[in-house]
Amino acid sequence: MDESQFRLEKQLAFILEIDKLKTILRQTHILDRTRRENDAEHTWHLTMMAIILLEHAKDPKLDLLRVLKMLIVHDLVEIDAGDTFAYDTKGYEDKEERELKAAQRLFGMLPKDQEEELMGLWKEFENRATIESKYANALDRLQPMLFNYNNDGDTWKKHGISSSQVLDRNKNIADGSEILGQYVRTMVRSAIEKGYIDEA
Amino acid sequence: MDESQFRLEKQLAFILEIDKLKTILRQTHILDRTRRENDAEHTWHLTMMAIILLEHAKDPKLDLLRVLKMLIVHDLVEIDAGDTFAYDTKGYEDKEERELKAAQRLFGMLPKDQEEELMGLWKEFENRATIESKYANALDRLQPMLFNYNNDGDTWKKHGISSSQVLDRNKNIADGSEILGQYVRTMVRSAIEKGYIDEA
Repeated sequence: MDESQFRLEKQLAFILEIDKLKTILRQTHILDRTRRENDAEHTWHLTMMAIILLEHAKDPKLDLLRVLKMLIVHDLVEIDAGDTFAYDTKGYEDKEERELKAAQRLFGMLPKDQEEELMGLWKEFENRATIESKYANALDRLQPMLFNYNNDGDTWKKHGISSSQVLDRNKNIADGSEILGQYVRTMVRSAIEKGYIDEA
Repeated sequence: MDESQFRLEKQLAFILEIDKLKTILRQTHILDRTRRENDAEHTWHLTMMAIILLEHAKDPKLDLLRVLKMLIVHDLVEIDAGDTFAYDTKGYEDKEERELKAAQRLFGMLPKDQEEELMGLWKEFENRATIESKYANALDRLQPMLFNYNNDGDTWKKHGISSSQVLDRNKNIADGSEILGQYVRTMVRSAIEKGYIDEA
């Protein structure tokens, strides 16, 4: 087997393994309300948002390819570590450790250079230091907000989330996009009026 | 409302509308066999494959951003037009017309410049003339083959598909990647041996 085929075998094993992302359920429901959203389809939605909303990014000249790669990779660790609900403080305690282990196992299935690339992309997303990762994170926060708002409060109501929790959770949106940050503040005011969240 | 907010409202309406892609079911099952795959998660899988398998593309120096954009957009038309099963010759008769209408409605929700961009990406994918679209199409064909092969024949068996149908359907894979084209031919030989498809 030549090097190229050897690499291909590893890559295909990884591609089959990550099919599991389609079974990791999020708290949010899809908009027809028939079922909970899974991580794989959520990720697709974020990539589409990244393309469509680019002009609103803090720096619209940012590297969109890097944003898309980061998004496509960002939830893979949840295959092993599971989805930690945004407002689950207990779950957040060991989230980092669980996710690092998952990253090592999953990305470790790939040839070394690709393992390093994916690990780099995932860490960049998590660290929120670059303009690309700030934009990617803003979208990741905005999407469930849009869903909750357009599904009559959905998980906000179910878990009794308050406006300050939502605003705190979503303050990073403005780091990636000022106009989206403004939009979120308007949405939260409207959500209070509609009774989806308590003002607190 | 300023121009930027006006654009944002249209963009968000589009982003909510395309959530429906998560309800369009394909023939293929996800690998745990619990349910059929939907278009949104399928698309995510293809984008991950595009990143991981890039070195095997006919021209590995191709524009990966363009490939990703094309993939992210390529199935949206199925929101209105539905998924046409790969071996459904009747369904293919008016597929083009149904899909063009869908593209006009969906992309038409966006500001004009973005409508044109998405229409261009979708047509580029469909026409398979550029090196990027050939690679994107190769992945779109390869993924369900990988799934059928790794799910004991799945839809091949169910619909009594023959090896020549599979090879014909998948000859485009070699246009996007020689090594993936070879891989598919090996997989088909093995699928015949395993009894997943009839040699014919």
